[in-house]
Amino acid sequence: MPATVTPKAKATERPPWSGLEHTTTTARYLRAVNYLAAAQIYLAFNPLLRDPLRPDHVKDRLLGHWGTCPGINLVHTYLNQFILRADASVLLVTGPGHGAAANLANMYLDGSLAEVYPDMTRDLVGLTAFVRAFSWPGGFASHLTPALPGVIHEGGELGYALATAFGAAFDNPDLLVPCIVGDGEAETGPTATAWHSTKFLNPATDGAVLPILHLNGYKIASPSLYGTMDRDDLDSLFTGYGYAPYFAGYDGRPEDEFAAAMEEAYADVRWIQSQARQGQSLRKPRWPMIVLHTPKGWTGPKEVDGKPVEGTFRAHQVPGKGLKTNPVHLAAVEGWLKSYRPEELFDAAGRPAPDLLAACPRGDRRIALNPHALGGAVRRPLTLPSVEDAGVEIVERGGQSASSMEALGRYLRLVTALNQKDRNFRVVCPDELESNKLGAILDVTDRQYTWPVPPEVEHIGPDGRVMEVLSEHTCQGWLQGYLLTGRHGVFPCYEAFVGIVDTMMNQYAKFLKTSMELPWRRQVAALNYVLSSDAWRQEHNGYSHQGPGFINNLLTKKGHTIRVYLPPDANSLLVTMEHCLTSTNRVNLVVAGKQPMPQWLTLAEAREHCRVGASVWRWASSHDGEQSDIVLAGCGDTPTLEVMAAAQLLRDLAPDWRVRVVNVTNLLALGIPQKYPHGLDADHFDDLFPPGVPVVFNFHGYTAAVKQLLFERPNNGRFDLNGYREEGTTTTPFDMHVRNRTSRYHLVMQVAEKVAARRPDTQSRAEVLTRTCWDHLSDHDKYIRQHGVDRPEVVGWRWQPQ
Amino acid sequence: MPATVTPKAKATERPPWSGLEHTTTTARYLRAVNYLAAAQIYLAFNPLLRDPLRPDHVKDRLLGHWGTCPGINLVHTYLNQFILRADASVLLVTGPGHGAAANLANMYLDGSLAEVYPDMTRDLVGLTAFVRAFSWPGGFASHLTPALPGVIHEGGELGYALATAFGAAFDNPDLLVPCIVGDGEAETGPTATAWHSTKFLNPATDGAVLPILHLNGYKIASPSLYGTMDRDDLDSLFTGYGYAPYFAGYDGRPEDEFAAAMEEAYADVRWIQSQARQGQSLRKPRWPMIVLHTPKGWTGPKEVDGKPVEGTFRAHQVPGKGLKTNPVHLAAVEGWLKSYRPEELFDAAGRPAPDLLAACPRGDRRIALNPHALGGAVRRPLTLPSVEDAGVEIVERGGQSASSMEALGRYLRLVTALNQKDRNFRVVCPDELESNKLGAILDVTDRQYTWPVPPEVEHIGPDGRVMEVLSEHTCQGWLQGYLLTGRHGVFPCYEAFVGIVDTMMNQYAKFLKTSMELPWRRQVAALNYVLSSDAWRQEHNGYSHQGPGFINNLLTKKGHTIRVYLPPDANSLLVTMEHCLTSTNRVNLVVAGKQPMPQWLTLAEAREHCRVGASVWRWASSHDGEQSDIVLAGCGDTPTLEVMAAAQLLRDLAPDWRVRVVNVTNLLALGIPQKYPHGLDADHFDDLFPPGVPVVFNFHGYTAAVKQLLFERPNNGRFDLNGYREEGTTTTPFDMHVRNRTSRYHLVMQVAEKVAARRPDTQSRAEVLTRTCWDHLSDHDKYIRQHGVDRPEVVGWRWQPQ
Repeated sequence: MPATVTPKAKATERPPWSGLEHTTTTARYLRAVNYLAAAQIYLAFNPLLRDPLRPDHVKDRLLGHWGTCPGINLVHTYLNQFILRADASVLLVTGPGHGAAANLANMYLDGSLAEVYPDMTRDLVGLTAFVRAFSWPGGFASHLTPALPGVIHEGGELGYALATAFGAAFDNPDLLVPCIVGDGEAETGPTATAWHSTKFLNPATDGAVLPILHLNGYKIASPSLYGTMDRDDLDSLFTGYGYAPYFAGYDGRPEDEFAAAMEEAYADVRWIQSQARQGQSLRKPRWPMIVLHTPKGWTGPKEVDGKPVEGTFRAHQVPGKGLKTNPVHLAAVEGWLKSYRPEELFDAAGRPAPDLLAACPRGDRRIALNPHALGGAVRRPLTLPSVEDAGVEIVERGGQSASSMEALGRYLRLVTALNQKDRNFRVVCPDELESNKLGAILDVTDRQYTWPVPPEVEHIGPDGRVMEVLSEHTCQGWLQGYLLTGRHGVFPCYEAFVGIVDTMMNQYAKFLKTSMELPWRRQVAALNYVLSSDAWRQEHNGYSHQGPGFINNLLTKKGHTIRVYLPPDANSLLVTMEHCLTSTNRVNLVVAGKQPMPQWLTLAEAREHCRVGASVWRWASSHDGEQSDIVLAGCGDTPTLEVMAAAQLLRDLAPDWRVRVVNVTNLLALGIPQKYPHGLDADHFDDLFPPGVPVVFNFHGYTAAVKQLLFERPNNGRFDLNGYREEGTTTTPFDMHVRNRTSRYHLVMQVAEKVAARRPDTQSRAEVLTRTCWDHLSDHDKYIRQHGVDRPEVVGWRWQPQ
Repeated sequence: MPATVTPKAKATERPPWSGLEHTTTTARYLRAVNYLAAAQIYLAFNPLLRDPLRPDHVKDRLLGHWGTCPGINLVHTYLNQFILRADASVLLVTGPGHGAAANLANMYLDGSLAEVYPDMTRDLVGLTAFVRAFSWPGGFASHLTPALPGVIHEGGELGYALATAFGAAFDNPDLLVPCIVGDGEAETGPTATAWHSTKFLNPATDGAVLPILHLNGYKIASPSLYGTMDRDDLDSLFTGYGYAPYFAGYDGRPEDEFAAAMEEAYADVRWIQSQARQGQSLRKPRWPMIVLHTPKGWTGPKEVDGKPVEGTFRAHQVPGKGLKTNPVHLAAVEGWLKSYRPEELFDAAGRPAPDLLAACPRGDRRIALNPHALGGAVRRPLTLPSVEDAGVEIVERGGQSASSMEALGRYLRLVTALNQKDRNFRVVCPDELESNKLGAILDVTDRQYTWPVPPEVEHIGPDGRVMEVLSEHTCQGWLQGYLLTGRHGVFPCYEAFVGIVDTMMNQYAKFLKTSMELPWRRQVAALNYVLSSDAWRQEHNGYSHQGPGFINNLLTKKGHTIRVYLPPDANSLLVTMEHCLTSTNRVNLVVAGKQPMPQWLTLAEAREHCRVGASVWRWASSHDGEQSDIVLAGCGDTPTLEVMAAAQLLRDLAPDWRVRVVNVTNLLALGIPQKYPHGLDADHFDDLFPPGVPVVFNFHGYTAAVKQLLFERPNNGRFDLNGYREEGTTTTPFDMHVRNRTSRYHLVMQVAEKVAARRPDTQSRAEVLTRTCWDHLSDHDKYIRQHGVDRPEVVGWRWQPQ
């Protein structure tokens, strides 16, 4: 059955935004912003070229990317005209963030820049400051950053604009999000799959994204791949994705054709939305997209040094770079800049001409001042349920089994239900929600998907709080867009595969770090990763699914922008997540298992444990954990289970040894407080790990993560660290510990060696323990090869309270 | 102009492979491999169900993914028929690697498994061992791994099969690489853009990839996105990508339609290749691809527990899991397995029936034994030029400027030219070759691209050793496929964005680690990353382009699978790359700048420095670097420059201080030799960093990388580490050091503090130095804000030999 195509006779009345067109004013506006974009790249002085251009007017370092600017300016010009006519709420996402000079030109001209930077006034003084500030120390970066209003997408690393735009549109039914995708960016995988996002978009309750594929034909040094596709190829491709593609810049002037395409496209958007909002069922609505074809560096120099520039890859960055010393370059750039006739666009005082100002939207209709783009200002806190309603009752410590993720599923079900009406909470996931045992959420909501689905499906429908697509990139992009427009969300993921978005997380943490340096950027809700199906409990999978490295990825970021939690049981997980869902301006990483595990802490205990981040578990220690011979520390739920089993073995077999059991739930508690807000101060750290006492530390991830945190702690050589040693395959749960030397038996042997070194009187006991452990390990190996499962002794192990 | 479509009348003669069809034998073969796939998932004993199925025949842990197996088996069945008729060389890449039970079934049946595992004989003993080994400790993993012959793509993380398949096909003109892409994997970004790879494929000199999009409609728990696209959507999408799509399983039986599609598709391949090889120019040749539609878990149980299974998401893993305790499940699974009538397929001795064996290709025509899939066996070393021909002559140490990357460009130009005829060396790059100043390679070769390009381009053509696409994922996938089939390559990339392939590198390092445990997997050439445009010299770009975290990513992997080099100058870089291009079975990471920098070492010195990995630079130290008060160490070219400037400042201003200058070019030399083959032994390490002497260490990347390596060294508290502190924006090169406290002035202040602490007599001199440094820093800040560039004092700094 074919997709729903917008009927050609769209409406009997002419809508208010109709008749978008190229006019004298749009032509002048385009000249003005192209002039301003180029002026920023070259000029430190003489911003309106009132004096003949001299080398000393020119910046010493010429940085920037001219090539993409004219296209961005073209889009701005007609978006402005459209906004003025339609009075529409428009949030622009610009994929080619290197064209910041263009965005800046528009922000300057419509006055939105001065709302944040008051010295960027629209007169000669402000204009001089403005052109100079670009790519200047202490000024604006060369690409889009959070330091510019309206930006929800850092420019630089390419690929994520489109998914981010959809994230902004979800649950904002009145918002239009045009998204410029450059033909370089279009080659990336994340963009290539983000086109599918319309299959998830609900026209009744979500806003619209208008993708604008900007083809200028070249990347840095080569033709772009999309630039070698002709109109038929592109029409077929985007029709296949499900769009109604409109083409501009193919037959006539790009200006005329873009205005026409914009009008058609918005008519499609409104028709689809109005049908859906009147309750008409639409099968595969064909959302519009625009292919905009313009020459690279359009209106720039035709030729430099005898080689064509406009319309070629040579227009990518700064044409005619040599103008400090090369008079030919100087003349070429001057001629080019003057071709925009700035004297007709700015008056004697440097003020933009009245018709240019009139061409700009007003107030928060200005693109850079769209309220949704300043998400912190529109964010409302979530209504949170009591964790008590999802917690695990501890009848006997360690005596019952529960799945941490199932408990979290119950909690998130309540969170979802409580905030259902506010439509400001979403869960994104690469088809792993149920596999991660968070399926309880689906009791109260669906997976949102608007294309027709086969009959045999569950929990899927056009309206739902869960969004599942097998693309971590799309999940992350959607969530970033959603959070930065003031909403809340959680991203559950398989631990080993979340690293797919390593660099996206990296860019997002950079975005947050910069945002926090700007008083006008208000706080946005934290980005919450929940990782499960972890390295230690890969049942259906093997070595390729064992990778706890995302912790290490996070640790490269600024200490105040990240948190890493490894709650040891279900109640700790709930308390942690409650905290995460109220936290702001940070990336929270929470790692917890999905398999049933012994439970250790009551909710009250968990709350206290999580508040401090790391504590002595006296009830698990021998001799009340005082004057200990050794500290046995666990971080992460599975390694903690082995710590507990080792503690019990030691209690049984070496009752006079003084073993303190410590648990670390907030990994960054190990770091120094100068770097990490949650880092324990030196006294507190020494209370936990008394100086001079050796520590056997059993960690969930790669030990490198712990090593870097402990590096600044004195005498860190006393820490003996175990973790995932990059050993694994499809094997039994306990065998994973054996292969990585994190098993109870390995811990006991490490303890024995260290206690014997301190207390020679126990040498022989230590030897007996070690022999016993080796025997156990040998039995284990034989047993699993024969039976394919772990020994009953391990599977049936239960904690015996003292 | 339209693409080239294969003319319908393809040939007058019937080609030998024509008439592919569903026969009694193919039906029986399909039953046999479906039976074997399912048997592996469930059975530990009674592999042919000669006895009624009892719970104790069943494995204790039921692991695996049934859902995708029947489709993989279908493809194998007709590929076998095709190979037998065409005598073709076929290397299969299976994206849904979780369907390993299917691949294993085929490897067992055609005897290729027994070539590597001799106990997997085709009789009852072998069969029992075979079914039991699946997902069994000490046996086979649940997904495709290097432990299975024919595998060049680890199963698990999805998204990379298609790019890997193209990598295998490049420069293998007689190879056909069918690539099964699951509909889950198809949702990933990396797959979504890898479809474009045909635009690069040269039909005259490369082999062919035949993508088979296997749609079974569901992922783990939801319908797949491609499963909701109808035939028109898919036809349009893949036509837009440039393919000629064939559909199987839409109108008639999948078996018949797949056989027909396979025949048509191969005719297309041969026609395109023969035209090109006869010198006919083809415009946009339409390579074939097949969309294969089958029910998920096809031929499996129709229903379990009253819910449909076959053709639904419930068939994803193990249907009827409860058969140990649930007699209904037991009966259902038994009934299902018996429906394949194993007694008709295997004789009394458990031997496969003769017609099944006859349906298998022989010798190295067997899919898993394709020689290209065992790349180490077909690899031939590169012919390497002398580094002398590209090196920098050192007239005066530190006295001249050269770009390391330009020198490397000259070297790689020679490498490219020398190995041109062997067609076994390629450079993949995300459009950054020229930006990274490696453009010299293009003097002797082109960027390979076969679609028509616009007129204004340079160095691009249908045959070239360089492949540029703005997708790091595609670059990495291509290179992995190329290396694992026995060839060589280099991947230059912007440092900040190479993390896009973090998890791909991670999976590849796991692949290598497992390969090295298998004697029959021979050594493949190293995967060589060359990172430039690094954090410290981001001219056109800012904070988003500053990210040296890939070093940390690598450090999570096994020590023997990785190397990290940070050569301090051009000659060191050349010597390093010469080594990398001869090395095998590892991932080499080389980081070097592209901007002109002072040169320190002659080629002979560089060779010695790189051999050891880290050495004292006596000529830069005071007092010959003996009995030093302090060690000033650099690692990375830009941090080393600041070390040299600091050493000179100290020599001038505090000539009696004894400062040893150390340079580390092989980062892993810092690690302990038990973990890292290149780790310095304790004596050597102490020679370099004498115990008790404080060390000020200036590092290129995040200090976490150094901390984890030093953690196991005694008294590591004496190391004071500087590195990239995640501070940056678009600013001057020297300001990056100031912001991150890696500047010469910061180093001098650190040294002053430490020397004064050891030698109270120099307290006042230390104070003067510190004040001087603060003054310099303050001047710097004022100057760059005013002028936008660094002070002449810094820009014009030159090393003065002692």
